[in-house]
Amino acid sequence: MKNDCVFCAIAEAEIPSFKVYEDELVLAYLDINPFTKGHTLVIPKVHSTGLLDTSDETLAAVLARVKKIAAHLKKALPCDGFNILQNNGAAAGQTVMHLHFHIVPRYGQEEITFVSHTGDMKALKALAEQLRF
Amino acid sequence: MKNDCVFCAIAEAEIPSFKVYEDELVLAYLDINPFTKGHTLVIPKVHSTGLLDTSDETLAAVLARVKKIAAHLKKALPCDGFNILQNNGAAAGQTVMHLHFHIVPRYGQEEITFVSHTGDMKALKALAEQLRF
Repeated sequence: MKNDCVFCAIAEAEIPSFKVYEDELVLAYLDINPFTKGHTLVIPKVHSTGLLDTSDETLAAVLARVKKIAAHLKKALPCDGFNILQNNGAAAGQTVMHLHFHIVPRYGQEEITFVSHTGDMKALKALAEQLRF
Repeated sequence: MKNDCVFCAIAEAEIPSFKVYEDELVLAYLDINPFTKGHTLVIPKVHSTGLLDTSDETLAAVLARVKKIAAHLKKALPCDGFNILQNNGAAAGQTVMHLHFHIVPRYGQEEITFVSHTGDMKALKALAEQLRF
C-alpha cells in the first residue's frame, strides 16, 4: 500500500469499500462502523491529511460533492436531516489521517450522538447497492 | 429584524456578537454556549438555511474562510485539533435555520463531546478580543 494510508488504498480500490458514489475527484462509501444508517464518508482521491493542508480549490470541489451526495442520501434513504462532520487531528477524534467528510443521516427524534456501531457487512452491502448513484 | 433570522441580525450587527473575524462574505464569532473554549461559528452574511440551498460558489468561499479561521484559532488559542460540524435540519440538531459551520477546538485527551455549556460573558468578551484578527 503506497504511503500506508488506508483511505488512499480504498480510493485506488486496493481495499474494497461499500461505494455510494465515485467521480474523477472523490470517492464516497459507507462507514463500516456507522453512527447511523447511511453514514457515508466522502474523500478526495488525492492525499491530504485534513482541512489545513488541502487547497481551497480541492476543498471547494469536495464540498460540492458532499452537498450532491447528501441531497441524494436525504431522498434515497430517506432521512430527516444530516450532520456534516470533518475531524482534524487525533485530539478531534480523527483516526485516519486522510481528509474525509462524514455525512451522518438523522431520523426523527433519535438522539444525536457520534458513536460508532459495528456494522453488519451484509446489510451494508445491500444498503450501498440501494444508494449507489 | 428582517425575516426573523437571528443570524441575519448578528450579520448586520443588529444583535451584538463576540466577533473573531469579518470580511465582505462571512462573519465569525464565538458561540455563547460553547462546546469547548474557542468554539466559533462561521456564517455567510447572505441568508440560506443549510448545505442544500446554498450555491457551490458560496460554499466554496465559506469553506475557504472556515479553513483560514481554523488555522488562526489553532495557533492563537492554541488547540491540538478541531472539528468542523455543520448541521442540517432539526433532526440533526440545527437550532438556527441559517447556514453555519461550527469550529470546535480540541485539547489533548479531553473527551470529544458536542455538549453546550452556558458561557461566561466576560470571559467570552476577553477571548474574542484575544482571538480577533
